[in-house]
Amino acid sequence: MTYCVGLLMDRGLVFISDTRTNSGIDNISRYRKMHTWTKPGDRSITLLSAGNLATTQIAVGLLDDRTQRLADRSPSILEAPTMFQVAQLVGQTLKGAVANHGEQASAFEATLILGGQIGEMPPRLFLIYPEGNFIEAGADTPFLQIGEAKYGKPILVRAFDPSLSFEAAIKLLLVSFDSTMRANLSVGMPLDVNVYEKDSLKAPRSMRIEQDDPYFQSISRGWSQALTSAVESLPDFEFPNETVDPNDPDGASLDR
Amino acid sequence: MTYCVGLLMDRGLVFISDTRTNSGIDNISRYRKMHTWTKPGDRSITLLSAGNLATTQIAVGLLDDRTQRLADRSPSILEAPTMFQVAQLVGQTLKGAVANHGEQASAFEATLILGGQIGEMPPRLFLIYPEGNFIEAGADTPFLQIGEAKYGKPILVRAFDPSLSFEAAIKLLLVSFDSTMRANLSVGMPLDVNVYEKDSLKAPRSMRIEQDDPYFQSISRGWSQALTSAVESLPDFEFPNETVDPNDPDGASLDR
Repeated sequence: MTYCVGLLMDRGLVFISDTRTNSGIDNISRYRKMHTWTKPGDRSITLLSAGNLATTQIAVGLLDDRTQRLADRSPSILEAPTMFQVAQLVGQTLKGAVANHGEQASAFEATLILGGQIGEMPPRLFLIYPEGNFIEAGADTPFLQIGEAKYGKPILVRAFDPSLSFEAAIKLLLVSFDSTMRANLSVGMPLDVNVYEKDSLKAPRSMRIEQDDPYFQSISRGWSQALTSAVESLPDFEFPNETVDPNDPDGASLDR
Repeated sequence: MTYCVGLLMDRGLVFISDTRTNSGIDNISRYRKMHTWTKPGDRSITLLSAGNLATTQIAVGLLDDRTQRLADRSPSILEAPTMFQVAQLVGQTLKGAVANHGEQASAFEATLILGGQIGEMPPRLFLIYPEGNFIEAGADTPFLQIGEAKYGKPILVRAFDPSLSFEAAIKLLLVSFDSTMRANLSVGMPLDVNVYEKDSLKAPRSMRIEQDDPYFQSISRGWSQALTSAVESLPDFEFPNETVDPNDPDGASLDR
């Protein structure tokens, strides 16, 4: 599978993706799932992909091809006037790549996270479905996940805040990814991280974090200790004085 | 959906289940998913169920019916000589209830957690699949989950230890359930908790924890604060000095 997250923050956008791709458990490869297009001074666009690798490579390939500025290959995501129109373009491209498989389409699905900024308009972040439609992040839902999202969601639900610093947000994302990778073999190191600073209109800061990265190791170890301390800081359960027949049919007398 | 957990502990067995059942999002009911059979001085058996409600009710009904000690209704889970044979009996009953639906069987599946102790043999804990086969918890995998298990797994992976006290284990389970219920509407309060003390061979201590339970509320609130403190206790990410072209095709120069 895959795990990718996009954050819509006060200071800009943060993207993170793993690099594990598998077709069965005995065919594991490493592929980059993060793609960036930049037109300095005008726009910066990042795309994360989860799902069928051939589908996402075709979609990214088509989008990339159309940026090569041949007149007959318009429209391009480097020319569309708004992020909304970029999302429409990406959605149509993805839908086409999936639908190309006809009745087998459901086996070739993929889901994308798209984020970026154009000119003076605010940065925007979208989740694009295999059907080509999409939803947008906002104040109520400031982060979007695709792929193996459940393990790492609780920590984001509790601790993510759009006003965080980029450094604190990346820490939180690494905790979310570490929790996921401990529970699910289909998500794996290294991780790609991309930080787009609002209004910079240039390429995001981009890093690859390897398994042996000292900071990642310190987070992974430190989080186990911090969690254990957090659990210990809460009061233990106390048994009530009464216990009752567990076979009580309506359960009513089981209330504490 | 549902979320249930069984713990195989040094001191005995702990079971917990939610009570939400839904058929679509506009048909939500409350059902007990925890069932207990006890023959004092001989055995105590607890069953947790996830999946199709009619299937689990038929399976539980059949198992219960056969304990009514009519000679022609043997074998019964109150008579089987070992927990392994109880698991086989429960598995066959579940398989029959599912297979009864013929070609539509996959829509009527259910999964069970079975745990208990018979005589002087050690307590055992099983996860029973809709196909009737099962796996057993042990030292390497001392907890079993069924239903919506992903959200609440990371905290158990990191913090559960079979040597914990029952009180500490219940605290941990409530954190796991709270994380799940914040992320998924198909798991809901109240929760049923069942604690079987090793070698007691009597009915487990049984409690129902309601939404407004003061202890549950303190865990739910306290965990948010404890998690935030835990995140803050870890060092923030620090950006490396170099950044590179995110379009670098092989990603090799993206290593930190």
